[in-house]
Amino acid sequence: MISFESDYIEGAHPRILQRLTESNLEQLPGYGTDLYCASARKRIKAACACPDGAVHFLVGGTQTNLVVIAALLQSYEGVIAAKTGHINVHEAGAIEYTGHKVLELPQHAGKLSPSELLAYLQAFYQDETHPHMVFPGMVYISHPTEYGTLYTKEELTELSNICRAYEIPLFLDGARLGYGLASLQTDVTLSDIAALCDVFSIGGTKVGALCGEAVVFPGRNAPLHFLTIAKQHGALLAKGRLLGIQFDTLFTDRLYWKISRHAIEMAEQLKQIFREKNYPFYLETPTNQQFILLENRQMENLKQKVGFSFWQTAGERHTVVRFATSWATKQEDMDLLRTLLSSV
Amino acid sequence: MISFESDYIEGAHPRILQRLTESNLEQLPGYGTDLYCASARKRIKAACACPDGAVHFLVGGTQTNLVVIAALLQSYEGVIAAKTGHINVHEAGAIEYTGHKVLELPQHAGKLSPSELLAYLQAFYQDETHPHMVFPGMVYISHPTEYGTLYTKEELTELSNICRAYEIPLFLDGARLGYGLASLQTDVTLSDIAALCDVFSIGGTKVGALCGEAVVFPGRNAPLHFLTIAKQHGALLAKGRLLGIQFDTLFTDRLYWKISRHAIEMAEQLKQIFREKNYPFYLETPTNQQFILLENRQMENLKQKVGFSFWQTAGERHTVVRFATSWATKQEDMDLLRTLLSSV
Amino acid sequence: MISFESDYIEGAHPRILQRLTESNLEQLPGYGTDLYCASARKRIKAACACPDGAVHFLVGGTQTNLVVIAALLQSYEGVIAAKTGHINVHEAGAIEYTGHKVLELPQHAGKLSPSELLAYLQAFYQDETHPHMVFPGMVYISHPTEYGTLYTKEELTELSNICRAYEIPLFLDGARLGYGLASLQTDVTLSDIAALCDVFSIGGTKVGALCGEAVVFPGRNAPLHFLTIAKQHGALLAKGRLLGIQFDTLFTDRLYWKISRHAIEMAEQLKQIFREKNYPFYLETPTNQQFILLENRQMENLKQKVGFSFWQTAGERHTVVRFATSWATKQEDMDLLRTLLSSV
Amino acid sequence: MISFESDYIEGAHPRILQRLTESNLEQLPGYGTDLYCASARKRIKAACACPDGAVHFLVGGTQTNLVVIAALLQSYEGVIAAKTGHINVHEAGAIEYTGHKVLELPQHAGKLSPSELLAYLQAFYQDETHPHMVFPGMVYISHPTEYGTLYTKEELTELSNICRAYEIPLFLDGARLGYGLASLQTDVTLSDIAALCDVFSIGGTKVGALCGEAVVFPGRNAPLHFLTIAKQHGALLAKGRLLGIQFDTLFTDRLYWKISRHAIEMAEQLKQIFREKNYPFYLETPTNQQFILLENRQMENLKQKVGFSFWQTAGERHTVVRFATSWATKQEDMDLLRTLLSSV
Repeated sequence: MISFESDYIEGAHPRILQRLTESNLEQLPGYGTDLYCASARKRIKAACACPDGAVHFLVGGTQTNLVVIAALLQSYEGVIAAKTGHINVHEAGAIEYTGHKVLELPQHAGKLSPSELLAYLQAFYQDETHPHMVFPGMVYISHPTEYGTLYTKEELTELSNICRAYEIPLFLDGARLGYGLASLQTDVTLSDIAALCDVFSIGGTKVGALCGEAVVFPGRNAPLHFLTIAKQHGALLAKGRLLGIQFDTLFTDRLYWKISRHAIEMAEQLKQIFREKNYPFYLETPTNQQFILLENRQMENLKQKVGFSFWQTAGERHTVVRFATSWATKQEDMDLLRTLLSSV
Repeated sequence: MISFESDYIEGAHPRILQRLTESNLEQLPGYGTDLYCASARKRIKAACACPDGAVHFLVGGTQTNLVVIAALLQSYEGVIAAKTGHINVHEAGAIEYTGHKVLELPQHAGKLSPSELLAYLQAFYQDETHPHMVFPGMVYISHPTEYGTLYTKEELTELSNICRAYEIPLFLDGARLGYGLASLQTDVTLSDIAALCDVFSIGGTKVGALCGEAVVFPGRNAPLHFLTIAKQHGALLAKGRLLGIQFDTLFTDRLYWKISRHAIEMAEQLKQIFREKNYPFYLETPTNQQFILLENRQMENLKQKVGFSFWQTAGERHTVVRFATSWATKQEDMDLLRTLLSSV
Repeated sequence: MISFESDYIEGAHPRILQRLTESNLEQLPGYGTDLYCASARKRIKAACACPDGAVHFLVGGTQTNLVVIAALLQSYEGVIAAKTGHINVHEAGAIEYTGHKVLELPQHAGKLSPSELLAYLQAFYQDETHPHMVFPGMVYISHPTEYGTLYTKEELTELSNICRAYEIPLFLDGARLGYGLASLQTDVTLSDIAALCDVFSIGGTKVGALCGEAVVFPGRNAPLHFLTIAKQHGALLAKGRLLGIQFDTLFTDRLYWKISRHAIEMAEQLKQIFREKNYPFYLETPTNQQFILLENRQMENLKQKVGFSFWQTAGERHTVVRFATSWATKQEDMDLLRTLLSSV
Repeated sequence: MISFESDYIEGAHPRILQRLTESNLEQLPGYGTDLYCASARKRIKAACACPDGAVHFLVGGTQTNLVVIAALLQSYEGVIAAKTGHINVHEAGAIEYTGHKVLELPQHAGKLSPSELLAYLQAFYQDETHPHMVFPGMVYISHPTEYGTLYTKEELTELSNICRAYEIPLFLDGARLGYGLASLQTDVTLSDIAALCDVFSIGGTKVGALCGEAVVFPGRNAPLHFLTIAKQHGALLAKGRLLGIQFDTLFTDRLYWKISRHAIEMAEQLKQIFREKNYPFYLETPTNQQFILLENRQMENLKQKVGFSFWQTAGERHTVVRFATSWATKQEDMDLLRTLLSSV
């Protein structure tokens, strides 16, 4: 049975496995000090046009969010996020475990509104009792969002300007960044992100790697002793080569963009198929995740034939489900899906 | 200038100071093991009709909330509270500092809705991804709420039933409990609270004491080593006598009720005065806090003559302000307020 | 029965209760913003000769240690302390609860050795693996120590120089500071401490107050938003007046020194009495705590007649016990002790 | 240049890479729910003779220690460890970051002494002030220790009996467990460990895997919601297959034992070579790590030709260094080392 359940149900891009195999007999120093990590850092900084920046490799997405946020916040600060932000919902309270409140703002198709952010910050400092409250110390956005949507360059610029006016870092969670960069409907490039954000992650797990997220501090603003901070969170991989080789591969010959673009092409076909079959969209997005509204009986039937994921209930009789393509989605999967939908 | 800014701008009830002075030369053991603490515990348990319960004395309100919540939650659990709950807004992230998320539900005049609570809990366990989310491990309510409102016995019973069905404790923050118990519009008694809640606090700071909150575990459910837990949070007072004597005094001859009732009588006069003068209420409450809607210019004038506290803005030209009475409010203060309002 | 069990078994100095009573009917703003706190801060800064410093009032000793240490350390730093330091033994893991390791060094009659401190810091930075270890981010000393001993001005200067060379703050826990300052065998003054330490506390609880510790940042180095940090730990007292009035009283007419000197005079008599009766000292100290070595049977007899505290076992048949005088110890207590010891 | 610097400078056992490649195109569910994880769990439980146990896969060693310890301790508890225990020295304060004190006992060639452990526990509960101290809530040992030494079955049994008498779990950190099990000088089997410990880890990173540690709860004592706890620490790998496949391979055909035995055989040769060349041992161990005492000049010479790691200084003119063999050490490396040592 084919599955569109998520973008982490696949293995790794074959070139990654090939390079792991080729380098396997080399003796390499640990903790990210090997030559593959060095090369990957160099390639990423070049791709981001941030030669003075710093790049660190971590293993997973929640880990990345908690380490970055804990490293940058003062104890009395919290992090602003959309109500649907991954850190606010699906990280088991990892941010709070590090002692920090997630300061929730409304979401608009998964996105923060710059004007609501500004209003929040203004109101906070106007309130005389604010020393008894959690200081807003950072803004967290995901791009693509948990809903597959994307910020425009203008929105990102506005958020960035607000953060700089209030002297708080803007952190972009790029767990699915490749699918955002490769979207047909984006005007945001990787170097835009590096110019507008104070820290961001480039997700490997969902874009071709077995595991791994690259954390980029594009300026000279990386926190002191980030390695020690990562270690303290159990986030420092002994065999850093595993991460270095993967990112070095993904950032060679623009592989990260190429495989992301493939996922987008598959997603465009997927949207087309659902449109043809007259399935209503809950949310049609410019990236690799599409949200379809199914009648519950229809959903039960479909579930027997193809994998997808439950998103949320929609009243008594309908459910929103998610279909995700990825770098590994095959053309024959799309063809099969078209056939299956015809028969449901 | 008289002030109705809050209920903690006064000193202590004179009988408390008198007893502190009388007992001052006694040598007493520390950390809550003295005879005054023992006597106060006994009186409180009698007043709550919970002879098997446990009573601990802590110093302040935020401290009480964070120690109780941290003592009862598992690491993967959070605490449900209304959006306006004190722990969610005005405790500088104290709960998150202990590692726990505040799970925010809508507020209705400061209160949680039992049906919304139930819906939240049902939805949580129906969501297949819930192991990636913060488990609801406790329900926090304040009574009176931050808006001076009160739960009815029926509402409290519903909340209690839901908590017991889901096997999570119901914690009632009684920082202003006296003013709730003494309200003219309540059907909730202290023994009702002891019967329906799993843990609650009885506030001293705002009701006649210099400092101090009593934490009551009405059943046999007090956490093991609560003293050590309090100590770990810096919340264990060396000279426990300071707390024991105050609560022993407040719970002798029903002083806690008598002085609370006085504050309510003053609040009833205060409401009457504002009504007479045609000031619109933002919220008219059954306890000691009243919320008035002022034009901004009117507010500036009034501020010169009487103390009150800013609550929130209400559009461009109005502001909600709070007037609080207390056990120490004097009849002449009310008379003076009436005169002042006539002249504004 | 008289007791020398500790210095916190007494009430408050009568002048404190008197001033609490006199000011009781005043309406005063909360959270340390009242005029008594302001006056106390001014007096303390004058006594410390640190006009540019900052003074904050907290409630208890463990609370003070944890708030100060958490406020000053980076997440990857720990605090160096003697093995017998209060934070390492008797604070229920409060420092670790805030996320920081106590880095234990040997103790010499309760004191850190400057040369051992220096050697530790040198070795740490020479070890290539130190990024995998906890960075030493602060030095904690108590003065008097938990053993009643005192640093000399020379030792304090050496510790201070080392800390400044390594750019880490020196924190002096002065829970019993008065008894150190009033000792007949000290060359350390309060302004020496202010000149040599980066932060220190002045204990009220054990020196005449009902509760309260003053935290002094003698330079311009107080952490931003200390009030919010204190609040987050549940350490911000609503009725700050309770602390302000007490410290204002203790620092008027040198009351803090006078009552401390009384305790020292009583301790000198106590030492004389034990010497006369040929009781062996485990440790004879220059402050208010004296450590006597008793045979276990002797200890059991004595326990029936006078209060003291268990310190530690000393082999199978002996025990070290502690006798503490305080500001409240009376001459007749000393006379009674002399008589009692004669009859044991 | 060959290196004996550590046991994590190598890639993975070729069979692991082969199986990762073979399974790469399969679509598999995430978070440890795939069939490879299931198979690996089954094989590990069989090898441990604990059919009712639970097995979880985590990524790294420090991560494993902190997640397990935080999952099992109450907030007021700490973990007992030898002074040289990995959690006490080389984990950047990860345990303290979770709020728990490491309670340090003396080390004897890296090991805890059962009699000292017992004495510590007895003294703790005899001390009347123990509620003000951190409760001992767990015992942590490493096997092999950081010094390459091993507990005997008798020692392990004694430790286990003490822990069970005090009702605290015994946690064995098996980061290098294979090398302990395969030692020529051990009487401890994997099923002994499962019978005597309450939780233990089986290290993959240092024994043939790219990454990964298996956590085994041999009884029915696994904490509730361990997956959520892991997630909260950022320790839950999305593509759990990466861990499942590796452990499934290591526990097929006793590969874990076979490759560990190879490392031991190489270590025996290594010891023989150093003995032949008359290099003094600082510590000659029964596992894969050997500690040699070098004159500093000798060390500088040797460093040019072969990799090893600095361990600790030994006076002014000597240094202790560590040579580690691993599953990947080749016979020609040994031959080359023999030649090199002849020429230094």
